[in-house]
Amino acid sequence: MRLAITGAGGFVGRKVVELALARSDCRSITITDCSLPSTSPDPRLRVIEGDIADPLMQDAVLADADAVIHLAAVLGGAAEADPEASRRMNLDAALDLIHRARGRRFVLASSIAVYGKPPAIIDDDTPCAPTLIYAMHKRMAEIALETAVRRGEIDGVALRIPGVVARPDLAQGLKSAFLSNLFHAMRQGRGFTMPVAPEGRSPIASVHAVAAALLHAAVSSITPGDGRSLLLPALSVQFSDLEAALRQRFPSAPPITYRPDPDVMQGFGMFGDVQAADATHLGYPADRTLAELIARAL
Amino acid sequence: MRLAITGAGGFVGRKVVELALARSDCRSITITDCSLPSTSPDPRLRVIEGDIADPLMQDAVLADADAVIHLAAVLGGAAEADPEASRRMNLDAALDLIHRARGRRFVLASSIAVYGKPPAIIDDDTPCAPTLIYAMHKRMAEIALETAVRRGEIDGVALRIPGVVARPDLAQGLKSAFLSNLFHAMRQGRGFTMPVAPEGRSPIASVHAVAAALLHAAVSSITPGDGRSLLLPALSVQFSDLEAALRQRFPSAPPITYRPDPDVMQGFGMFGDVQAADATHLGYPADRTLAELIARAL
Repeated sequence: MRLAITGAGGFVGRKVVELALARSDCRSITITDCSLPSTSPDPRLRVIEGDIADPLMQDAVLADADAVIHLAAVLGGAAEADPEASRRMNLDAALDLIHRARGRRFVLASSIAVYGKPPAIIDDDTPCAPTLIYAMHKRMAEIALETAVRRGEIDGVALRIPGVVARPDLAQGLKSAFLSNLFHAMRQGRGFTMPVAPEGRSPIASVHAVAAALLHAAVSSITPGDGRSLLLPALSVQFSDLEAALRQRFPSAPPITYRPDPDVMQGFGMFGDVQAADATHLGYPADRTLAELIARAL
Repeated sequence: MRLAITGAGGFVGRKVVELALARSDCRSITITDCSLPSTSPDPRLRVIEGDIADPLMQDAVLADADAVIHLAAVLGGAAEADPEASRRMNLDAALDLIHRARGRRFVLASSIAVYGKPPAIIDDDTPCAPTLIYAMHKRMAEIALETAVRRGEIDGVALRIPGVVARPDLAQGLKSAFLSNLFHAMRQGRGFTMPVAPEGRSPIASVHAVAAALLHAAVSSITPGDGRSLLLPALSVQFSDLEAALRQRFPSAPPITYRPDPDVMQGFGMFGDVQAADATHLGYPADRTLAELIARAL
């Protein structure tokens, strides 16, 4: 397989590159982002820096690839702050890339944010009702991919990714950053205030599980029927349980404070279970237990 | 109410203008299209010719309106032949107009084509699975409007319109043109070949019912919960029944031939019932009987 990975310099992208390099069936790996850290000198790597919204860049990235993992995106908080940038990257660039990638395998990184205000249970039949700009544009890109699959123009799937932990402790334009920052604070023995209630819940997955799922989607040609987008497995963890599990590893971490922010709680704390039956049936990898998730996330 | 109507020179648009002029509560009616036939000298009419994809045009059209009916579109067959034109008009122009129309009432003309391969019954919970380029872009525009409504940025609804009869007997870039052309052929006493099987069914509505529904959506601020798009009522008529009903009015019309084209049959002949409970509950007008539909369509 000759693989191309957009957004390869991002948190999830770097892990996908690492896992791809570990596979002997990846003969060529084109990685692209606005800027990329210096990488291993693996002869299979093709490195292309630039703006993936540029059609010439898209052609260059696709030239040596028969499968694409499209991760490049303007994330949630950044998209809210600049809807035009979100439209340009999350909608227009995605539509162009899907069009240009005809005949290839295409994996679109989407998000459980497409469901909007979380229903009691998220499963394969949960309707989408985005409220965030980011989620709205991701849902539109999903529709472009789903339709192209139904039309037989492309082979691929959009994966709806849960909260990925543990992202670097940086301002990321992510409203859900607290999920990762809890890991960093407890590991570092810092106090931390969660902007949610202890009994709140959010579906999370380790970056390892998410990267492995993206790669699974790129190498398998297994897709759900009718081209539809696929909910990835996630552990919907109560925040107090997550704190307790982290405390087993870091017993000397100071107590966590919970000061719920209604907006954050509404957006990221009111989830119920995630039941990703289709993805499980199709062999998508997942964190099996909270302990495994934490071990991988750290 | 000060109303703006895009695509006002089209078949449905002209009927909307006619019905709006008959309402005393329409104080101002801005009509726009690439080209418009000379209209009645009603002092309430503002006529603007131009390309509604142009932002300056959009501002001009919105300047004197507090409600918009957005009908301008590249229709089904034309969109298949020129996907770029469809993206520019059905997606980009719609997204721009929805954005610029903030604070107003917005009615988007969508289509039952968003359901794709017709399920046995279409109702308010039928998931969308577009296969046509036109339907794909319309579904994306629906998502833009639904999200903006959920965000409280705009008030409005997308209406999913069934086959509208009887369109003028012209090449229209419509694969469903046979539905209208059957009316014209029988009225004119011409023979006609239907590209579907006599036992096939398609949901249709008179242009009067559809125009009245669009106007109902513009004047009422009643919308379904959560901003979701609304399936309009339609009569799902078996083609042999439609022929028989038309024959009662035109007894001397020669027999109709049925020569099913698999593509047309798949796209327009395999429908079951349409059960538009939400629209009916919200008072949307509809053709009550096939006889009424035919009388209005002629």
